[in-house]
Amino acid sequence: MNRSCAVSELLAEYGALIDAAKFDEWLALFADECRYEVVPRENFDRGLPAALILCDNRAMLEDRIRALREANKYNIHTDRHIIGLPRICDGGLRFEAPFVVYQTDQEGETRLFATGLYRDRVEVVGHRLKIRDKLILLDSFAVPSLLANPL
Amino acid sequence: MNRSCAVSELLAEYGALIDAAKFDEWLALFADECRYEVVPRENFDRGLPAALILCDNRAMLEDRIRALREANKYNIHTDRHIIGLPRICDGGLRFEAPFVVYQTDQEGETRLFATGLYRDRVEVVGHRLKIRDKLILLDSFAVPSLLANPL
Amino acid sequence: MNRSCAVSELLAEYGALIDAAKFDEWLALFADECRYEVVPRENFDRGLPAALILCDNRAMLEDRIRALREANKYNIHTDRHIIGLPRICDGGLRFEAPFVVYQTDQEGETRLFATGLYRDRVEVVGHRLKIRDKLILLDSFAVPSLLANPL
Repeated sequence: MNRSCAVSELLAEYGALIDAAKFDEWLALFADECRYEVVPRENFDRGLPAALILCDNRAMLEDRIRALREANKYNIHTDRHIIGLPRICDGGLRFEAPFVVYQTDQEGETRLFATGLYRDRVEVVGHRLKIRDKLILLDSFAVPSLLANPL
Repeated sequence: MNRSCAVSELLAEYGALIDAAKFDEWLALFADECRYEVVPRENFDRGLPAALILCDNRAMLEDRIRALREANKYNIHTDRHIIGLPRICDGGLRFEAPFVVYQTDQEGETRLFATGLYRDRVEVVGHRLKIRDKLILLDSFAVPSLLANPL
Repeated sequence: MNRSCAVSELLAEYGALIDAAKFDEWLALFADECRYEVVPRENFDRGLPAALILCDNRAMLEDRIRALREANKYNIHTDRHIIGLPRICDGGLRFEAPFVVYQTDQEGETRLFATGLYRDRVEVVGHRLKIRDKLILLDSFAVPSLLANPL
């Protein structure tokens, strides 16, 4: 598999696993040392470091998923990620891709939840790409409800 | 063409042909023996077999398209499918891909129509992939208007 | 890089550069002789030639970008393009791809802005694809605000 296909496959898995609520498999997409950060693009463009979410090691990310499972029983919804064509640099070890997430609630109403841009740095582990850094630039600072599920 | 490109191409054609209302060419994407099924994901996840639409052979699918042409003259709209990056398994003979469909009515208003996940099984016919089974998992059981056009 | 990957990469860059407001780099995606046209699909399907925007040479396109920079200071927003899987013909020198654009305003509200279809003709310049003709078929004739940024 060439690097471009590997990147597309990783992104496809990333979105599909969140949407299927398979969070352990989603965690397995990350490298042992990893970082997951959600920042409004407005802050990022101005060089303001405040993140909405920052997990700068794997334990924090695992903890977040555990909290999601055990604590967040309200605001029940399902996600749907549509991830656009990726733009690949650095021989495939860095890439960015735009995304939109829709959420569907228990009444069956589907709403636009968030749009933004993924900026990933990956590393090759065995024959797989693993996510080393995931920076999620959100187009809006005003996300319309809780950031429970990962983006 | 490698299998991953062939899958992307098939999905791109699938959406484009519906959006262009080229339903005969759309039908030609299916194998002689085929199945087309639309199920709310909620039902599917609970193992409930009730489908919103089930065409379990090609004649049913052709019939549906004929009905669409001859009977559905109201609710005139155009579709736009955005299909996300596919996740490929089984050497490219099975894949899934998230999708969103927008509809634009005659007043020029564009609305989110549906989001969901395609799960396809394909077979190789000559040098083309043909759809053997198409399972469409809809995120909402409450589709906001008639399911006239195929998803 | 095969032609299919090159097309995907070009489309990804196209959307990313608009969304990042890097309009000079966006201009550099076009060939020296080029055409950029926005037409409601309804007009196009009926053979009506009226375009919402027509730049039939590069100077016009550059002029449009200059106007955008100098004059359009109101209606401040950011764009997010999600471009679907491309459908490639003619050995990769022509392709089409569906798109959706979201806009986020200064209050942080993200709205669906437009959906449609790109139809591109490209040429090979050095080892890059450059856009020769870009036809943008908009699903709605009623775009909800000014067509300031390129689509």
